[in-house]
Amino acid sequence: MTTPAEGSLVLGIDLGGTKILAGVVDDQHRIVGRAKESTPAREGPEALREALVSAGRDALQVAGIGPERLSAIGIGSPGPLDVDAGVIRSSPNLNVTDFPLKGTLEEAFGTPVAVQNDVRVGGYGEFKLGAGRGYRDVLAAFVGTGIGGCLIRDGRIVTGVTGNAGEIGHLIVKADGPKCGCGRKGCLEAVASRTAITRRVYKAIKKGASTPLRDVVKSKTSRLKSKELSGAYRSGDPVAVHEVDRAARFLGLALGGLMNVLGPEIIIVGGGVTEALGGPFVDLVRNAARAQAMADPDRLVRIEQAELGDDSGLLGAALIARERFVGTGEPQRT
Amino acid sequence: MTTPAEGSLVLGIDLGGTKILAGVVDDQHRIVGRAKESTPAREGPEALREALVSAGRDALQVAGIGPERLSAIGIGSPGPLDVDAGVIRSSPNLNVTDFPLKGTLEEAFGTPVAVQNDVRVGGYGEFKLGAGRGYRDVLAAFVGTGIGGCLIRDGRIVTGVTGNAGEIGHLIVKADGPKCGCGRKGCLEAVASRTAITRRVYKAIKKGASTPLRDVVKSKTSRLKSKELSGAYRSGDPVAVHEVDRAARFLGLALGGLMNVLGPEIIIVGGGVTEALGGPFVDLVRNAARAQAMADPDRLVRIEQAELGDDSGLLGAALIARERFVGTGEPQRT
Repeated sequence: MTTPAEGSLVLGIDLGGTKILAGVVDDQHRIVGRAKESTPAREGPEALREALVSAGRDALQVAGIGPERLSAIGIGSPGPLDVDAGVIRSSPNLNVTDFPLKGTLEEAFGTPVAVQNDVRVGGYGEFKLGAGRGYRDVLAAFVGTGIGGCLIRDGRIVTGVTGNAGEIGHLIVKADGPKCGCGRKGCLEAVASRTAITRRVYKAIKKGASTPLRDVVKSKTSRLKSKELSGAYRSGDPVAVHEVDRAARFLGLALGGLMNVLGPEIIIVGGGVTEALGGPFVDLVRNAARAQAMADPDRLVRIEQAELGDDSGLLGAALIARERFVGTGEPQRT
Repeated sequence: MTTPAEGSLVLGIDLGGTKILAGVVDDQHRIVGRAKESTPAREGPEALREALVSAGRDALQVAGIGPERLSAIGIGSPGPLDVDAGVIRSSPNLNVTDFPLKGTLEEAFGTPVAVQNDVRVGGYGEFKLGAGRGYRDVLAAFVGTGIGGCLIRDGRIVTGVTGNAGEIGHLIVKADGPKCGCGRKGCLEAVASRTAITRRVYKAIKKGASTPLRDVVKSKTSRLKSKELSGAYRSGDPVAVHEVDRAARFLGLALGGLMNVLGPEIIIVGGGVTEALGGPFVDLVRNAARAQAMADPDRLVRIEQAELGDDSGLLGAALIARERFVGTGEPQRT
């Protein structure tokens, strides 16, 4: 087999609730082969195993290499995880319990596997290879179905005594406000996630508002895609504009408060909602954050959109595996 | 002159809005002489200079030493400060602008002076000598007229790119809630400080509530002392109980959110309000924080009352000066 890629190669996998992205990543952090599978979210462990292995094999095939060319595998997964054992403890979204990610991939590809939380690999990817390049103190915020965060200090992911540091979705921003998926009230995720926006769009429709989203949002738990939301927003639909503005403002308030507490060099705003809405959304978030951040009068904290898009998880997972098992993870600085 | 104290001695000063506390601190972090002056809050720079020097001289006299025995001076002050120049940039509470704290004390005592933010010296004192002894990742929260915080990570005060990190008083906890002194709405300080409690007690009185605090709180900006509040709380006065419980809950919600983000080893709750109300207040805060902190299901983050009381600022300031100028700041671990 001819090997088009030189140097050490790592397979990065981003295991999401709807899709699995896999990519073979070279030592310049370029994706030299990629593949995608739908996540079998309800079929149980055997189906999940097959989909993961299939995505990995397809990526290898596209890269034109065999598994013996891989130096390591890194995977980002929803949790809660046992990171050291490489096990998904339980995931209602994936319908598995004690699923051995590490064991499954080691067996299939014969190479060491690093497992980490999905938000954290995305944050680490952005930190080292995306909008956070060159910084040491970074907060990444990802807005999608929920809101996740990753905190990096002195160049390392902060895990905290809890192991779960970086969790920003359950900061209280509106005490006694809307009920959150976590059972509490007024969490950031309950007012600024796509789930929160969907619920409010549904409310507006029930009250008779006219919006092109009417065809998509038929209940408060309807699946509203970020692209559908951004389409309506861009077309000037008043319902979409109002709800996106409101969510961005809440996210900004929370991030402004965290600017006060942490004084990071940069806050990176990413995730599906951000990706779809782009610059105008980040501008709204930035303005609200700056207005709230009294401890940063000179505007020293940068607030920027994520740069890696859908690839942040895959690239971050590959990088974490490379740093652990290959040891040459220092990226090219631009 | 006989010298009762051995080893190197440092003068610590806590410059507050109502009083100046000064203490000569030995190398075992014991206060071997202390003095107190009222802060001339309206009289301007010359009166402030005299009061600071007088407090320092009195502390030396009580310790039975002359200024030549001092190795350094540390002072904690309200800000904003230019920490390096040792200057108070402006302080409405002290009615001074560009006041040279460092120059004033160096000239009067002929020894090097370290200047730091008042909340930060208190947090550092608690971290090294109080409730935070033995920990490396600490968040200190001080509740008084306002709400201040100090963040310590890997054993060092986090200042952030803004220089102001650790500011927790302006986290948003109730968006569009009560107006804050900073001009924003729903900040933690606007719902959980003594100022916020006072305003609500006044509201209750205006609505006809019967409370022993009626004699003290005659307007929404009345000066309610922490001791008066705690007296009413302990006597079971329903107004005091309701408002203290409410403030503690809001503080707990905010700290629970920060537990999620930071995962610190310990959160230290201090300040005048905490000091006066004691354990029951800290219990309320702890319960609310734990209920909010989804990222700490195993309750790994400790939440404890500060231990140094009024001396945290003085001892912390002395310690910062000792570490900078004497270099033997490592305290005795217990």
